[in-house]
Amino acid sequence: MGSLAAEKTVTGWAARDASGHLTPYNYTLRKTGPEDVVVKVLYCGICHTDIHQAKNHLGASKYPMVPGHEVVGEVVEVGPEVTKYSAGDVVGVGVIVGCCRECHPCKANVEQYCNKRIWSYNDVYTDGRPTQGGFASAMVVDQKFVVKIPAGLAPEQAAPLLCAGLTVYSPLKHFGLMSPGLRGGVLGLGGVGHMGVKVAKSMGHHVTVISSSARKRGEAMDDLGADAYLVSSDAAAMAAAGDSLDYIIDTVPVHHPLEPYLALLKLDGKLILMGVINQPLSFISPMVMLGRKAITGSFIGSMAETEEVLNFCVDKGLTSQIEVVKMDYVNQALERLERNDVRYRFVVDVAGSNIDDADAPPA
Amino acid sequence: MGSLAAEKTVTGWAARDASGHLTPYNYTLRKTGPEDVVVKVLYCGICHTDIHQAKNHLGASKYPMVPGHEVVGEVVEVGPEVTKYSAGDVVGVGVIVGCCRECHPCKANVEQYCNKRIWSYNDVYTDGRPTQGGFASAMVVDQKFVVKIPAGLAPEQAAPLLCAGLTVYSPLKHFGLMSPGLRGGVLGLGGVGHMGVKVAKSMGHHVTVISSSARKRGEAMDDLGADAYLVSSDAAAMAAAGDSLDYIIDTVPVHHPLEPYLALLKLDGKLILMGVINQPLSFISPMVMLGRKAITGSFIGSMAETEEVLNFCVDKGLTSQIEVVKMDYVNQALERLERNDVRYRFVVDVAGSNIDDADAPPA
Repeated sequence: MGSLAAEKTVTGWAARDASGHLTPYNYTLRKTGPEDVVVKVLYCGICHTDIHQAKNHLGASKYPMVPGHEVVGEVVEVGPEVTKYSAGDVVGVGVIVGCCRECHPCKANVEQYCNKRIWSYNDVYTDGRPTQGGFASAMVVDQKFVVKIPAGLAPEQAAPLLCAGLTVYSPLKHFGLMSPGLRGGVLGLGGVGHMGVKVAKSMGHHVTVISSSARKRGEAMDDLGADAYLVSSDAAAMAAAGDSLDYIIDTVPVHHPLEPYLALLKLDGKLILMGVINQPLSFISPMVMLGRKAITGSFIGSMAETEEVLNFCVDKGLTSQIEVVKMDYVNQALERLERNDVRYRFVVDVAGSNIDDADAPPA
Repeated sequence: MGSLAAEKTVTGWAARDASGHLTPYNYTLRKTGPEDVVVKVLYCGICHTDIHQAKNHLGASKYPMVPGHEVVGEVVEVGPEVTKYSAGDVVGVGVIVGCCRECHPCKANVEQYCNKRIWSYNDVYTDGRPTQGGFASAMVVDQKFVVKIPAGLAPEQAAPLLCAGLTVYSPLKHFGLMSPGLRGGVLGLGGVGHMGVKVAKSMGHHVTVISSSARKRGEAMDDLGADAYLVSSDAAAMAAAGDSLDYIIDTVPVHHPLEPYLALLKLDGKLILMGVINQPLSFISPMVMLGRKAITGSFIGSMAETEEVLNFCVDKGLTSQIEVVKMDYVNQALERLERNDVRYRFVVDVAGSNIDDADAPPA
């Protein structure tokens, strides 16, 4: 068949089972459709969600699975109806590679909320084949889900912006929280949290990092530029900070009480949840009523906001703090991420790795 | 002392202990201060909060306590610095009679969120004496906390608007939910819920009443004008109504799961809590994140919004559904309210009652 002849065989690093251990895996990409962009992967960030998916923490994993959804690459081929991109462009691909284009969220250009969204990996594409992510030599992606990486942004720097950066930028924009002078809180200082501090500081906010221990005080204040640091077990400091914050970006991905953080919010303050937590969270209704506070959440961001956050970072000279590793280190990197031993994001140098190396050392 | 000579002795009906049983009680009102308005009470609505306070459900009740915070009366005297009101005016008094005037909420004219607000009863006024509510012959109230009842609104009709009506109007206005064509839900069909249906219908919304049983379907649709009625245990109907509502006014004052109602909200939908519930409420974080939904709440409304809602009701020809009773029926009315046996609000005809009658029959 002609169409099969045009399919490309690529190598990705795939999990084969719930151990989540990644090893080289060969598969074919669909032939380039009229609106498709073929991307040679340069860099791919490692997000905490990659661990959840690779290890089947959410109970819906299918194997073999090539994770990776913070993808920066070079365009090597485009379909005949692609006008926005051409070979040689440096582009990004994020968490979503498809949507229905007909529902209310799609028509409102917030396709990340489409109930028929297609995930970059561990999902099924419109042609029935599994989607595979960015820990691979190449991807084929519909042009709607590709963004141009602006000049002035190094490709490895751009990778964490496509998920972590977008995840904090989108709600601040949507909820009208971009004005200078606002007081924000960031709960949890991982990949998303560190971008939260940087993005909020770039907007001119006063930023308080809130943590369960004093351990990260120095890095939060000195390295990331936070204005204040609150240890949640310090009752006096928490009480003194009551009614002071316009918003809190809550990146904690495990169960935690909400009342201590609701109490930090001022009138009309917003607690913005970003962590998918399987256990129910709870709160007392007067804590939201008597201050008209909101417990809300946000999920990555739209393609339009992806372009915006990249340009925002160029304009503000904002960089992410990353540790660049080769593909044969990916399993160690996943392990270190799982124990929160990274400042703050691993980015795999995919193009600079020998990704076909089936003899990669076991993690 | 000259000031004592100007104090007025009045009779109210007071709870003496946590039985919540009200009996006549004589006390003095402060002398009329420069900014005070003396109000002869005409009507006073009975709110569910009156039961909580009279029976010490919230653990902070002080006795003797004269409840009542949906007060409509006639001005009989004003202090020398009162310019907005004069004798003969029909006015309303609501839940709050004092605030600090200096904090962020006070300066933003949302004094109901002032942490130093003074409640109409079961609180202590600035002069150190207890505040007493509207089940009494008269009240003395600072002019800031008095509103004029507009022409065209019967005084007994106005009473429930001062708390129940305001409680639903304020969040719809604040959250930008006044546009015609919105789809709203009302959870719980008591005093506040029935006003919710009426106010939302007057704004041109499509209104769905959501209830645990089919019992109130007829009255919701036929008497109150709701457009749809959902029984929360009907899984098929609930699923069919998923992602359909812009907001839900949640008036349920006891513990209930939030997930079934969050699922009814569309993208950016808001679950607006209005019930003070002592038990924690819980939810799963993806239910808010994957749809950017908000769990929020609202507490009565501002004095400015009180004026607005009264005028809104006149403009829209909106009336509350009330059962007018005399004071000697107040204990029976409280009992009936507690078992939800009223359509939908009791209003006591205070001026038309013999409130000095210490021989009122026990309830």
